Amino acid sequence: MTDAPTLGYYLDGDRFWADVQEQARIGALRDRGLCRLALDDADNQARLWLVAQAESLGCTAHYDDLGNVFLHREGRHSTLAPLLIGSHLDSQPRGGAYDGALGVVAGLAVLRTLQEQQVRHDRPVEVVSWTNEEGARFAPGASGSSWFAGARSQDTIVSATDGEGTSFEEALEECLALLESKRVHRRPARYVPHAFLELHIEQGPVLESRGLPVCVVSGIQGVNWYGFEINGEANHAGTTPASARRDAFLGAHDLVTALRSAVANADDELRFTIGKFAVLPGSVNTIPERVTCTIDLRHPSQAVLDVLDAEFHRLAERKWAGCTARLDVSSRVAPVAFDETLLAVLDASVSNYSPPLRLMSGAFHDAIHLARICPTAMLFAPCRNGISHHPDEHVERVDAEVAVRVLADAAGRLLHVTT
Amino acid sequence: MTDAPTLGYYLDGDRFWADVQEQARIGALRDRGLCRLALDDADNQARLWLVAQAESLGCTAHYDDLGNVFLHREGRHSTLAPLLIGSHLDSQPRGGAYDGALGVVAGLAVLRTLQEQQVRHDRPVEVVSWTNEEGARFAPGASGSSWFAGARSQDTIVSATDGEGTSFEEALEECLALLESKRVHRRPARYVPHAFLELHIEQGPVLESRGLPVCVVSGIQGVNWYGFEINGEANHAGTTPASARRDAFLGAHDLVTALRSAVANADDELRFTIGKFAVLPGSVNTIPERVTCTIDLRHPSQAVLDVLDAEFHRLAERKWAGCTARLDVSSRVAPVAFDETLLAVLDASVSNYSPPLRLMSGAFHDAIHLARICPTAMLFAPCRNGISHHPDEHVERVDAEVAVRVLADAAGRLLHVTT
Repeated sequence: MTDAPTLGYYLDGDRFWADVQEQARIGALRDRGLCRLALDDADNQARLWLVAQAESLGCTAHYDDLGNVFLHREGRHSTLAPLLIGSHLDSQPRGGAYDGALGVVAGLAVLRTLQEQQVRHDRPVEVVSWTNEEGARFAPGASGSSWFAGARSQDTIVSATDGEGTSFEEALEECLALLESKRVHRRPARYVPHAFLELHIEQGPVLESRGLPVCVVSGIQGVNWYGFEINGEANHAGTTPASARRDAFLGAHDLVTALRSAVANADDELRFTIGKFAVLPGSVNTIPERVTCTIDLRHPSQAVLDVLDAEFHRLAERKWAGCTARLDVSSRVAPVAFDETLLAVLDASVSNYSPPLRLMSGAFHDAIHLARICPTAMLFAPCRNGISHHPDEHVERVDAEVAVRVLADAAGRLLHVTT
Repeated sequence: MTDAPTLGYYLDGDRFWADVQEQARIGALRDRGLCRLALDDADNQARLWLVAQAESLGCTAHYDDLGNVFLHREGRHSTLAPLLIGSHLDSQPRGGAYDGALGVVAGLAVLRTLQEQQVRHDRPVEVVSWTNEEGARFAPGASGSSWFAGARSQDTIVSATDGEGTSFEEALEECLALLESKRVHRRPARYVPHAFLELHIEQGPVLESRGLPVCVVSGIQGVNWYGFEINGEANHAGTTPASARRDAFLGAHDLVTALRSAVANADDELRFTIGKFAVLPGSVNTIPERVTCTIDLRHPSQAVLDVLDAEFHRLAERKWAGCTARLDVSSRVAPVAFDETLLAVLDASVSNYSPPLRLMSGAFHDAIHLARICPTAMLFAPCRNGISHHPDEHVERVDAEVAVRVLADAAGRLLHVTT
């Protein structure tokens, strides 16, 4: 007995890769990489490019109040909740061509395959590009997906302002006006998808180091963000004996030693990063009076995060080199575990192409919000040296092609497509 | 047998303290403290105030090419090298009323005493206020004294520019024109003093903690300034496992641990300060790719500095958390030991008022340059909590009065004055 070819088998790899390259020219930086900040000209042009692809395929394109763009393929029963596939087209200021875009173009490739193969399925299929995932121009990110999933209100989102004083609201109005002028359909309502699938680059080194073209993402790590402040006393670096100092730098150094020792007991899924560390007044010959620093702490287990959270708070109550410490929690995002049934479908799809592997995502994705309203799961494709948010971000075509076929196969299984 | 009263006995403490308060009004900040940046309006007004004091005493005032102001009292033999006493009148942007000014006004008080008591002495006596000791407006500082002692050329000094683009040269020309307009005598030549004495606030906590009103300063610590650079690799804080990181912050943290352990073996005269510590790119969720930090290292012994210098260079050759390190020496100033004969004169003068103590100065002073051309020594008066370079800088009148009497006695001894 031979299995019938799966949907991914029919996917046109050349066309998929050509699409990936074509979108990468919109907002391209001179040398390599691209700058497509949320709702800027390039980002809006990328929306129009996506709409044009849908229309040339004979699908319809829609947009909603947040500028999220949907490509719609009708199913036999138009009242069934659509299967939703996608990611985002916006980038960091000096970003790469794949973070987000790969997942949108992969969705488009699945849509193209369904269309070209004239596949019939019961429920509609939609490809989405979410507005402002990066949060690089308007913070925080994941605007479109968090609004769609009901996690954040439109009023909150559109009140954000970029570095030049332009509000999200103004930029959004321009984007919506452009889409309207191109006669794209405006859709008034949000909906609850049947399921959401997102292919994304890993933004880490694991797949590359294991030589794998794709893996299943089982969830998204929880993240706690902290701000530490250590307060001592400024004084003259030359005249103040060690015994009379309350050196905030030394206090911070001792505190960091204790923090590192606290996290050293955790397993290797823990991520601990001190990304900001500022010393005041910041003069070569003045003893620092204040240090402020941040901690980015991530782990798939809420219990592990809670233990460390309690330990950090205990450490903040002590004195460090005679200095007082203060700890603020600036953000807590609980770990998300993706839908087990959906993960099993992805596992099965991966197994046709590659040894199976599940990873937790260390980065946020739009999927974190969708997971709260519908079965959600993700696939990762490897990126070179784990680099992202940088023009050097690079994906091998051979890997991306496997990943997109896995995505197509999974979509086919969810749609009960037989080929 | 009863000793004759010394010169300090005749010093008018009320007048001295009134002068200290009067100069503190020139450039006073609204609340307390003062802003008298080198060669600004307030600093120039302070020069004129000093000149006016000399003239009302019947002494002559002079200035030289760098705007240093000298008050001159003639001796029996005008060709003998003058005894020089003084400090500086410029301040930090939010400085105190005593750092520098106390020493100038103390010199003035000695001059006043000699004049009022009609004391005869062989060699001339001069009181000096050096231009731009602080280096707060034009870096580096000690401009007037370093030029006077031949350590730096006028061309080098006047090429400095302040934060608003005004050159030292322009500011100096304005100052000299003002002095000329007031018919102050311009003096074309520098000279080698018989000796230089400087009274200054300690800018440290030792005298206050020991309850002493004054002490002898035996020299100025040597200072090495270093810049460290630690280079790792920026990466995503969420997706990069610990094993794949080259975190420049962790590298810098480990390096600082090693540096602290290296200096822990030194005696308690060592001063070790990390005053700047910058993390790039400085984002909460990005693994730092670079840390730059400075070290201010001071000790009275060149040998101790040399041992640590070699150790720092050894540490810079190692890798730290997978990151490379680079060490630059940005400045080296050798320790200065003051003139032993002069110190003995000061010790004897102190002993009439207070238990004897000698301290090394941890801060730079104009005396460091004078010490290279003539016998030089200093006295310290205590300042509250060791605070300086701050409006809270405070000196108790009772301490300052003892210190200025000691200065007067020492001057009397050097001039072989009998009263």
